[in-house]
Amino acid sequence: MSQDNEKLPGEPYSKNIRARFWITGDQSGYIGIGRIQLLEKIEQHGSMSQAAKSMGMSYKKAWKLIEELNAMYDEPMIMKLKGGKSGGGSVLTPRGKKIIEDYKLVEQEIEQLLKKLSNRL
Amino acid sequence: MSQDNEKLPGEPYSKNIRARFWITGDQSGYIGIGRIQLLEKIEQHGSMSQAAKSMGMSYKKAWKLIEELNAMYDEPMIMKLKGGKSGGGSVLTPRGKKIIEDYKLVEQEIEQLLKKLSNRL
Repeated sequence: MSQDNEKLPGEPYSKNIRARFWITGDQSGYIGIGRIQLLEKIEQHGSMSQAAKSMGMSYKKAWKLIEELNAMYDEPMIMKLKGGKSGGGSVLTPRGKKIIEDYKLVEQEIEQLLKKLSNRL
Repeated sequence: MSQDNEKLPGEPYSKNIRARFWITGDQSGYIGIGRIQLLEKIEQHGSMSQAAKSMGMSYKKAWKLIEELNAMYDEPMIMKLKGGKSGGGSVLTPRGKKIIEDYKLVEQEIEQLLKKLSNRL
């Protein structure tokens, strides 16, 4: 097995196979592990700026990613709420919630497959 | 589906899920699609320098990769042949041939899984 301090690509889904995957949009764009984390942080904080901050990402970079995510399907993934005492905030749409579920389904299946295959290598 | 001219990560294993994977060594290192191609080219040309050239890769870079590949397991993957009229050349060891087979097995299984899953997203 590889040494822990070595820089390796992908995620360690099994003892000797690492992988990464991306779901592509109907229209354009893609989402992988980093963008999924951004969506999860937006859901958690209810705020794009706090989500970006929590990931050490600039607001500008987060906004660029969200524009790309919102263009993947007919329905956007993130919606800005206007006004109110709290001055807005951001929430995930049903489309945004579904992509997280889809991602986790694929991840679970890949992990299961690679754990099985790792014993055959 | 994404536009063809868009730059997307990974390999298009299904209509809406792309992926990449890497097999890690017993001792250190990893091998992914690019390094597998290098092994295949060495097998095809019987020469490291011609393999590197055919991939537009410098000999120095190829040599660095091969040193890493040869350190993945107890047995090296590539062996240099000494002397002879042709002035040597390089061949794959059984370990080098096996890693190509392993890689193709994992690739086939991932492709099959992702094609199945792509209909559920």
